[in-house]
Amino acid sequence: MSKLLENVVGEFAKLPGVGRRSALRLALNLLRREVEDADALAGAIYQFRRDVKSCIYCNNISDTEICPICQDTRRDKKMICVVEQVADLITIENTRQYGGLYHVLGGVISPMQGVSPSDLKIDLLIDNITKNEVEEVILAIPSTIEGETTSYYITRRIKQLGVKISAISRGIGFGTEIEYADEMTITHALRNRVSY
Amino acid sequence: MSKLLENVVGEFAKLPGVGRRSALRLALNLLRREVEDADALAGAIYQFRRDVKSCIYCNNISDTEICPICQDTRRDKKMICVVEQVADLITIENTRQYGGLYHVLGGVISPMQGVSPSDLKIDLLIDNITKNEVEEVILAIPSTIEGETTSYYITRRIKQLGVKISAISRGIGFGTEIEYADEMTITHALRNRVSY
Repeated sequence: MSKLLENVVGEFAKLPGVGRRSALRLALNLLRREVEDADALAGAIYQFRRDVKSCIYCNNISDTEICPICQDTRRDKKMICVVEQVADLITIENTRQYGGLYHVLGGVISPMQGVSPSDLKIDLLIDNITKNEVEEVILAIPSTIEGETTSYYITRRIKQLGVKISAISRGIGFGTEIEYADEMTITHALRNRVSY
Repeated sequence: MSKLLENVVGEFAKLPGVGRRSALRLALNLLRREVEDADALAGAIYQFRRDVKSCIYCNNISDTEICPICQDTRRDKKMICVVEQVADLITIENTRQYGGLYHVLGGVISPMQGVSPSDLKIDLLIDNITKNEVEEVILAIPSTIEGETTSYYITRRIKQLGVKISAISRGIGFGTEIEYADEMTITHALRNRVSY
């Protein structure tokens, strides 16, 4: 096979959820498009990875030192929503239901994978809480063992600052059929039932 | 949102089968990997689209003027398998059951999409057949209306050269349940039943 093709297929296949078959389809599709289209894709990848920054306050990705959310004066600076990753921030932002700031941990505590609290910008979070006199920290961290450990660790460190701490509610999602919900979720949903 | 992110997500989303959600996932994954990994992906895309050639004999993609298949002296040059696209060639090659040459049309005749016979390297095919004294042409062209039109057109032009023409067999695929096969296929499979 063409080495150039082999190379680009190999690189595409390193992306998450892209198998060799899809990678081949992506590569061959480039041939049907203009040279400039491929250049644009290559350039966007190169530039993004090289030039994108982390916001010095919230660790969100940003083109500038301070991200647009932290710069936005209309946002409620008394609230910080703590998320594991940028994708979670974007998902929450897309609902347009949250007007506070964020804090992107960039991971969760995982001794197995060598991620310790010091890797997670938690000192920066404490700093922000203190400096901005934050009133509430909302934890929107995955409910995995690592996530729960992280939530517990953060809660322990924040509590002494006298700030309100909450976590997003868990339960059966809208559109999820109860029949297919997992046991953990159902157990939780039953125990934390809401009175009408 | 970050313009750099917006840009790379937009470019990823132009790839076939990649929606904006997957595009975002691909982009954010790049941040978890080394800068060099992103450079490698970008470089592979850029180089592939810029430098890959079409084989001057069979129109297969190639790093060199003549593709490795046409260069391979062990292959049976008396047989040409005609396919619509490179992906089809690769799929057939992967079976390791075919030892002849190929001819990549690069499309099928489609007046609706402005693809005429002259766009499909059919003159080149005729040339190859004549020069190499080819004995058999196997048509492995999709059984769509456009594909059938293309097969018919090629057959008409080749017939006068006194070369044997065949087409890959159609029927119910191995692993396909008869229950779920489409009516056209079943009708064809019944009519073209094979005696035991």
